[in-house]
Amino acid sequence: MKTYKRVLSIAGSDCSGGAGIDADLKTISACGGYAMAAVTALVAENTVGVQAIHEVPADFVREQIASCLDDIGADAIKIGMLGSPDLIKAVAASLDEKARGIPVVLDPVMVAQSGDRLVDDASAATLETLLLPRATIVTPNLPEAEALGGMPIRTGGELPRAAEAIAAKAGTGTAVLIKGGHLEDEPESDDFLRLGNGETLRLAGKRIATKNNHGTGCTLSSAIATFLAHGCGVADAVAKAKAYITEAIRAGAAYEIGHGHGPVHHFHAFWA
Amino acid sequence: MKTYKRVLSIAGSDCSGGAGIDADLKTISACGGYAMAAVTALVAENTVGVQAIHEVPADFVREQIASCLDDIGADAIKIGMLGSPDLIKAVAASLDEKARGIPVVLDPVMVAQSGDRLVDDASAATLETLLLPRATIVTPNLPEAEALGGMPIRTGGELPRAAEAIAAKAGTGTAVLIKGGHLEDEPESDDFLRLGNGETLRLAGKRIATKNNHGTGCTLSSAIATFLAHGCGVADAVAKAKAYITEAIRAGAAYEIGHGHGPVHHFHAFWA
Repeated sequence: MKTYKRVLSIAGSDCSGGAGIDADLKTISACGGYAMAAVTALVAENTVGVQAIHEVPADFVREQIASCLDDIGADAIKIGMLGSPDLIKAVAASLDEKARGIPVVLDPVMVAQSGDRLVDDASAATLETLLLPRATIVTPNLPEAEALGGMPIRTGGELPRAAEAIAAKAGTGTAVLIKGGHLEDEPESDDFLRLGNGETLRLAGKRIATKNNHGTGCTLSSAIATFLAHGCGVADAVAKAKAYITEAIRAGAAYEIGHGHGPVHHFHAFWA
Repeated sequence: MKTYKRVLSIAGSDCSGGAGIDADLKTISACGGYAMAAVTALVAENTVGVQAIHEVPADFVREQIASCLDDIGADAIKIGMLGSPDLIKAVAASLDEKARGIPVVLDPVMVAQSGDRLVDDASAATLETLLLPRATIVTPNLPEAEALGGMPIRTGGELPRAAEAIAAKAGTGTAVLIKGGHLEDEPESDDFLRLGNGETLRLAGKRIATKNNHGTGCTLSSAIATFLAHGCGVADAVAKAKAYITEAIRAGAAYEIGHGHGPVHHFHAFWA
């Protein structure tokens, strides 16, 4: 008998299919993994914005994680949007109880690229304390890296110090991937990766002209989780995930969908 | 600019990834469509059984459908598990308001293949009154066909009369696909299709020895919806969907996953 590489996403939904567990289920599948999803919140949203949110009780999130891990198990776990300290505590307790030794990719959804805070201070603090130390790798965008590192980042030259500060806060060998954003001295979309052993790498990326960039953070983190599930090391998983999302953005740019920021094309390798 | 063929699933979730919107997102994607999902219930389940259900308020289901249809639109809609008359009324109202002219595939989740009732009598009656007449095609299993048709089905020879009774109840040219089950005189897994014009077809299918048959109903109905979105006629969409699920079951049979009835392999055409 064959086995699947199993990846569990713990995140919110996006009914319009571009972000959250919807993007995760698509990404994990496109990267050759078996996808499962424990839903932390239902989000009525689309390419224009968020219309409404239905929160899922923390106990029910634990139930979903238990249903997956008790029966099927997982080779990697991706954690996305967790909107309250209770939810974060519930997920941390589930990981403690049922996921020892399974690689965890933490997308620390806290601040939008625009700078808008997405969670309250108590949630951000709980995430730092309970989940950051458990993560194999954490994948902040620039504003999240500033929040987690406790320092402003204005130039590419400040990335190593910010990544080091985040790693020190984790204190457990967590790798840190800071996603390229709008730095004054960085015209392209390079990412900065600090591995658990302190080694650092810059991952070169070209900026792609597109308005279809909804769900890129979810997509990147679940792609990393899938390549970790396949047995790749952290640097290799990040490189493969970056290659995947770059092509997904490039292919997605050719599509007209919705009135605002559309999705990337998760299945670009399979159909056009 | 290119466009996607957009398919909206309105159904429950299955955190373990084999059924519900999880299966739908996978199926629609594998069949070349852009997948969206309005969640009607969260289900903590796995290959062994259902552990817990979190119901989603009817108003929030309407919000999700509106977020999808107001911005992105849809080329086909698949309707799955709706656990209460309120939810059914909400979905019917959404279809009336926002989905005129969009093909609808109704998987009338009412009775498990085992014969266990999955919804109460009030829900079954509301579904018959409000959704059956709106469906382009309805896809009952045998016990559901017995319930909808109001007659027992013991032999393959009784299928045409049952399908006719269901079509008469719809009264609007709804096609009826009765999924092959365990009929005394039918050793194989043939399906019976009655088109809106009264024409009938038998779709031959081989029984595949596997315990990995979780989510086949969800998978078949969302595959039909995707092929309708691609512009196929009903008979063609059903034939293509049946070919897809047959290969998904065959490929999934080779995998060891979970302790009970595992999923089919939705991406069999893309990776092994």
